Amino acid sequence: MSDEPVKYVLPESDIPTHWVNLMPDLPGDPSPPLNPGTGEPAGPDDLTPIFPMGLIQQEVATDPEVEIPDEVRDVYKRWRPSPLFRARRLERALDTPAHIYYKYEGGSPAGSHKPNSAVPQAYENKKAGVRRLATETGAGQWGSALALACSLFDLECVVYMVGASYDQKPYRRSMMETWGATVHRSPSDTTEAGRTHVEHQSGSLGIAISEAVEVAAGDSETNYALGSVLNHVCMHQTVIGQEAMRQMEMAGEEPDIVIGCVGGGSNFAGLSFPFVRRRLRGESEARFLAAEPAACPTLTRGVYRYDFGDTSGTTPLLPMYTLGHDFVPPPVHAGGLRYHGDSPLLCGLVRAGLIDAVAYRQNETFEAAVRFARTEGILPAPEPAHAIRAVIAEAESARESGEERVILFGLCGHGHFDMSAYDAYLSGTLEDIEFSEAEMEAALERLPEAPALA
Amino acid sequence: MSDEPVKYVLPESDIPTHWVNLMPDLPGDPSPPLNPGTGEPAGPDDLTPIFPMGLIQQEVATDPEVEIPDEVRDVYKRWRPSPLFRARRLERALDTPAHIYYKYEGGSPAGSHKPNSAVPQAYENKKAGVRRLATETGAGQWGSALALACSLFDLECVVYMVGASYDQKPYRRSMMETWGATVHRSPSDTTEAGRTHVEHQSGSLGIAISEAVEVAAGDSETNYALGSVLNHVCMHQTVIGQEAMRQMEMAGEEPDIVIGCVGGGSNFAGLSFPFVRRRLRGESEARFLAAEPAACPTLTRGVYRYDFGDTSGTTPLLPMYTLGHDFVPPPVHAGGLRYHGDSPLLCGLVRAGLIDAVAYRQNETFEAAVRFARTEGILPAPEPAHAIRAVIAEAESARESGEERVILFGLCGHGHFDMSAYDAYLSGTLEDIEFSEAEMEAALERLPEAPALA
Repeated sequence: MSDEPVKYVLPESDIPTHWVNLMPDLPGDPSPPLNPGTGEPAGPDDLTPIFPMGLIQQEVATDPEVEIPDEVRDVYKRWRPSPLFRARRLERALDTPAHIYYKYEGGSPAGSHKPNSAVPQAYENKKAGVRRLATETGAGQWGSALALACSLFDLECVVYMVGASYDQKPYRRSMMETWGATVHRSPSDTTEAGRTHVEHQSGSLGIAISEAVEVAAGDSETNYALGSVLNHVCMHQTVIGQEAMRQMEMAGEEPDIVIGCVGGGSNFAGLSFPFVRRRLRGESEARFLAAEPAACPTLTRGVYRYDFGDTSGTTPLLPMYTLGHDFVPPPVHAGGLRYHGDSPLLCGLVRAGLIDAVAYRQNETFEAAVRFARTEGILPAPEPAHAIRAVIAEAESARESGEERVILFGLCGHGHFDMSAYDAYLSGTLEDIEFSEAEMEAALERLPEAPALA
Repeated sequence: MSDEPVKYVLPESDIPTHWVNLMPDLPGDPSPPLNPGTGEPAGPDDLTPIFPMGLIQQEVATDPEVEIPDEVRDVYKRWRPSPLFRARRLERALDTPAHIYYKYEGGSPAGSHKPNSAVPQAYENKKAGVRRLATETGAGQWGSALALACSLFDLECVVYMVGASYDQKPYRRSMMETWGATVHRSPSDTTEAGRTHVEHQSGSLGIAISEAVEVAAGDSETNYALGSVLNHVCMHQTVIGQEAMRQMEMAGEEPDIVIGCVGGGSNFAGLSFPFVRRRLRGESEARFLAAEPAACPTLTRGVYRYDFGDTSGTTPLLPMYTLGHDFVPPPVHAGGLRYHGDSPLLCGLVRAGLIDAVAYRQNETFEAAVRFARTEGILPAPEPAHAIRAVIAEAESARESGEERVILFGLCGHGHFDMSAYDAYLSGTLEDIEFSEAEMEAALERLPEAPALA
């Protein structure tokens, strides 16, 4: 064999024993979530109706590391440690001096990074005696992951799937059903929230969250599970970045830039937060770049304000970049990125200038995805195709400057359930759907009253 | 973590350096393929119009091992060594004392074991200066693998996809196109063979092979590539069994029985032949079980005779169990198993009593697949679901006899492109399609004239 490694594999013993909690490293005091009724900081009591105490403790944890339960690591062993690849064929195709690495999470049974959080969430709920979990899903990656985790921990699972994705990706629904979950097209007629927003037939993550929260809040045996945004979800995903750090050491390199796509932020947080900690501690000069869809440009076009996490306004107010909680993004195929807000932790780092953001349109992301598939072999999901688009731009700029830049990006899932989107791209019928500026501005005018953020 | 390992992972250095060629171990003199015109043994010259010399030499090799080119191992490194799992959750669900292991090939970019042969085939053709490869595909696993391999070695690729599968699995077509291949629904109007069999709109592997061979034979810059049946294809797949052997050693166990599904036989051969060699050399007592669809029961219902490999009768005559080269199997979802014959090597071992065979219907295989998905997490393709069905029967018989049987089976691919079949099963509309006994008997009467086989 040639002596050019393309894959870096860790032994099972290198599955992390702890999650990274970035909270204590953050610059300044983080703005707390607020109870929307009182305007006071939301405490654990605001969350107990829908979350088990084990997860609430993780959500508000202040320790820099949180131990991963053995039962969770036992399940992680089924697909972790995940491989890190050097994209040598893509580098050659781009004729760039940049070194491109990607951490691939598509090898999990659900096909993405999402089981990294679905498993501990199912585990903590099972331990707390919960019978059923309710959740939302966009493209279906999160819903599949939770359906899988529930089947492994003997929990029932009900999923509200965003209408646009339900229609575009019917086989994601079949996958969830094969694992035993019940799937509703959102907006559905099974909840008040769904009936209220019935005019938005393409749905949104905000509406689907409202439906799932309503179901959980109304049934003492049912809890709610969220696939991104919250601190504990971002924390669960840090197994990705911790493994990547060891694998980059195997490769003998340090990333100059870490790139990921952002919907709610858990994929980006999972890969980057261990590296962000190094930067915050003065141990690295790495840059960080978040790639989002131009059709739902929260970080690049949103306002930094307190807003609801869901469309109906039932969650605590979260400090984040938002397009307005009742803004309905156009039905782009990267359904996992169609969220009006972002993780407060991630937003704080963008606000502080530690993380940059860039937005791309559908066609340019699929062009990047096909280029990647034809060089590296793996067929990416539409979400990480945004990261690939940003990686290509970085690699081209490195070529122009003649710089041996080291790029690390997150390939958070495969695109096996997104082939209708590839079809549309290859046949030239994929649209660069614009969002409505007027609708966004109107949604921003409906932001809830809350203290301004610095 | 608990000390119950569920996954056995080999280092990259344990990717085999050689393929196992079972030919010199076979009991007795194997019956040679025959030139259909002369009735004489077919030699390399019969194959040069459609295969490169590198592959022809592998096809007729008599050495017990054949070296794997560095360039091929370099590509194998992208997903090999593949993991071996212990199915502890399935064992518990079955309450069986049996130990169940499975070798999982779904982690390749195309989602199955097929790239193990597509890559060396593309490599040898590229080395020979060929510009384009033509092939057939059933469920699309082989076509995807060849499209991937062609994109990695800069070859054009044209795929004739069996009509029934083309309709059932549209996203397999999109996957091949994403990797740059051209895909035709077979029977097509682009070939004489396709136009001749236009009345069989559901198509068959035999018809699709005729189309691809016709294209290759008619163009000096185009070669043909076959995804199973032939000796060199079975040989390429033995990386699976060699790795599994080392992984079983890691687990400290020897399989009492090796189980796999059989369409053309390459998956079964790949896993089992290294173990069969041990048995033939008196180093093991392992049993071997081939699982096939009741709708296309070549090993359990076919006759052992010389027959064509394709429907139009253009290939050499192969000694095998056959249902007749122009028998068109009903359109079951396990499209990769819809072939009228089987690998001559494999058939010889069945004939010699070394390998047993069993046939299952669609619904019982999907029942097994769903059971597997809900315990082990991985969603199997319909083809290996036949193996899973046989594994469950073995595990249940071990429970009845109280025997600690060690079962090893091949999970040769995931079912991400087969969700319409899962949908049909879960909604109770999946049919146990019968094949027509009358059509089979008529096809058997049309077997070509050739010497009888012992």
